[in-house]
Amino acid sequence: MANLKLMQQLSVQTPSKIVFFVIDGLGGLPGPEGLSELEMARTPNLDHLAAESVCGLIQHVAPGITPGSGPGHLALFGYDPLEFDIGRGILEALGLDMEVRGGDMAARGNFCTVDSDNVLLSRRGGRSVGDRLETEENPRLVEVLKTIDLPGASFEIRGGREHRFAVVFRAPGLSDALTDTDPQHEGLAPRPAQAMDEESQSSADLVNKFIALAREKLEERYHANMIMLRGFSKQPPIPAFPKVYNLHPGAIAIYPMYRGLAKLLGMEIVPTGATAQDTVITLKEQYDNHDFFFLHFKRADAAGEDGDFPAKVQALEEADSLIPSLMELNPDVLVVTGDHSTPAVLAAHSWHPVPVAMRAKWLRPDDVCKFSEKAFRDGSLGRFQATDLMPLAMAHALKLAKYGA
Amino acid sequence: MANLKLMQQLSVQTPSKIVFFVIDGLGGLPGPEGLSELEMARTPNLDHLAAESVCGLIQHVAPGITPGSGPGHLALFGYDPLEFDIGRGILEALGLDMEVRGGDMAARGNFCTVDSDNVLLSRRGGRSVGDRLETEENPRLVEVLKTIDLPGASFEIRGGREHRFAVVFRAPGLSDALTDTDPQHEGLAPRPAQAMDEESQSSADLVNKFIALAREKLEERYHANMIMLRGFSKQPPIPAFPKVYNLHPGAIAIYPMYRGLAKLLGMEIVPTGATAQDTVITLKEQYDNHDFFFLHFKRADAAGEDGDFPAKVQALEEADSLIPSLMELNPDVLVVTGDHSTPAVLAAHSWHPVPVAMRAKWLRPDDVCKFSEKAFRDGSLGRFQATDLMPLAMAHALKLAKYGA
Repeated sequence: MANLKLMQQLSVQTPSKIVFFVIDGLGGLPGPEGLSELEMARTPNLDHLAAESVCGLIQHVAPGITPGSGPGHLALFGYDPLEFDIGRGILEALGLDMEVRGGDMAARGNFCTVDSDNVLLSRRGGRSVGDRLETEENPRLVEVLKTIDLPGASFEIRGGREHRFAVVFRAPGLSDALTDTDPQHEGLAPRPAQAMDEESQSSADLVNKFIALAREKLEERYHANMIMLRGFSKQPPIPAFPKVYNLHPGAIAIYPMYRGLAKLLGMEIVPTGATAQDTVITLKEQYDNHDFFFLHFKRADAAGEDGDFPAKVQALEEADSLIPSLMELNPDVLVVTGDHSTPAVLAAHSWHPVPVAMRAKWLRPDDVCKFSEKAFRDGSLGRFQATDLMPLAMAHALKLAKYGA
Repeated sequence: MANLKLMQQLSVQTPSKIVFFVIDGLGGLPGPEGLSELEMARTPNLDHLAAESVCGLIQHVAPGITPGSGPGHLALFGYDPLEFDIGRGILEALGLDMEVRGGDMAARGNFCTVDSDNVLLSRRGGRSVGDRLETEENPRLVEVLKTIDLPGASFEIRGGREHRFAVVFRAPGLSDALTDTDPQHEGLAPRPAQAMDEESQSSADLVNKFIALAREKLEERYHANMIMLRGFSKQPPIPAFPKVYNLHPGAIAIYPMYRGLAKLLGMEIVPTGATAQDTVITLKEQYDNHDFFFLHFKRADAAGEDGDFPAKVQALEEADSLIPSLMELNPDVLVVTGDHSTPAVLAAHSWHPVPVAMRAKWLRPDDVCKFSEKAFRDGSLGRFQATDLMPLAMAHALKLAKYGA
């Protein structure tokens, strides 16, 4: 919070512009040929950017800690992810493009299958253990749940892939201090949500009522005849990005979760198309309307998560192709970085520090002219905490007053 | 504590193995030829390890702060030594292989010599200032103290070198908020232990009673006719290592203090022989029984403390000779580092950062291929806090879940 208070104290509004280009899952590890995805990729534009930038490596949470997408982005925007915790239910709802307002309580949902003794046959709504609901069946079941009449509360529900859905409850005085109803193993019965304190009892009752009504609506089915809810969460009290930094930020992202996160921080969502190229066109078109842009590029992370080394290399080359357009706009500060590493060899997010390049006018330049994990070790920014990136960007945009006389 | 809570939250049990080889007093300073002990030593195996590792330099407490062995090891195991303070009395007792249980209070003891006016002639039990008790006399005096009958409490006592001993008091409600009885200068009278708060008065009375009874037993002697106690300390509340990290750790150390420290953290002590070679044989034999090993190598520190540069070089070469056996075991994560520097030119512990090499599968390799203080400055781990070493080792062993969704 210290960081944010200092920013709120020192930040001043100016016409200068900051662009954050976030390549999701940017960092990697050596693949079969001993080189990382970035080292294998042909990235002439990123290399050019690196040559004109100060470079470094950032860690988003702490050494050895692998960030989820929520914590990774929070850190980039200057919010310590160990202090600000965005619950699983909220992230799931945001990822399904649902609106989550203050006071709302979100949860992740599973369709599941129970036998006549209420024992779980499949946690994922399949006919047996390991089997799961077909994605095509999901919307019809979600429509069934929408017909529930929940006394004293309203709710919004949206289906995801396979057995997944999210639900957002709206009622006065909701509390998210509730236990999950998913026992995590087949052969057990789904549990009731339990209140972790006295004040949460009415919320537990509401959730359990919802589940009971869902069961009634679904019980005639052969499978996916029950639901489980987990990750109950309300929006955490989080200082608004525009207030903290005195900025008028615009977020351009194709995937709902990143738009949702940006919205949660108080950024304005700028509608865009379905391709990365579209997001850059949107940036150009909207360039006069904001002084801070968050531009999100997803494909690198998706390829890394798939464990597809060549696809990640290709995704990075696509990201590279967008760089000239960003450089042409010539923002006062252009930051290119990622929210975490997603090495294809791990097929998962990882704890390894992430390259960051910052191009601006008032730099102490370094000699880095290759955009890679290894080259960036010698950058003049060194290795630092991602929460320090926003203050550095603000400073280089001359948007921070002096501290003290 | 934040670190430990995060570890407890994220750590998962897996079959992967972590080995910490701790070379006590590893770091050094340039000697007569301008090279450090590590640079003078022939260390082909450590160099080979460095080439296959990521390297860096760690600081155990804070810049400029010289760690004692207790804080140095605590930091290596992830416990902030500024937060967790293991008292001198406890360390002394552990170093003499005594058992210290929760609720016990330990103290360091001196045999000393007072005149008929109760004024100190020798703080170290000699016949005059500067003179000290012969080590051979120590056990007989300790036997005398063992005959003390202390009402309402039991105690254990064990002799050390020269005038030194340790005592562990056992009684309900003991407090260690007591002042030392050693006035630190000859020509003054030993002081009574004073309670620093009201609740500690009964503990002060107990200690002073013990000292008075000791004086009665010893007063016929010409010298070493009195005792002084200092460093009163109870075991601090410290989260157990196995719980924090979800590990089943085994500690292999020849010297009692290191075994004691490991035991205090909840590690299992694996019995071993008297030589460094024995410890490695023990490691091999017990390799299947633990998923974390702490292997302690003492000689480098001892030589450094003696100010014996060639002996420290030789000790490092001995440590080097053990490396191939460790590498052959091929643990998922092999860490080689130290608990502090002990430059022979200082003949003491020092504040200089300590080399650390970590060999594992999921590394971003660096170009370091020489195991030395200087070469490790260019390592990809950079310079970091020793308390971050365990999280990094856990991450590289794939024993940590992602933080947040």
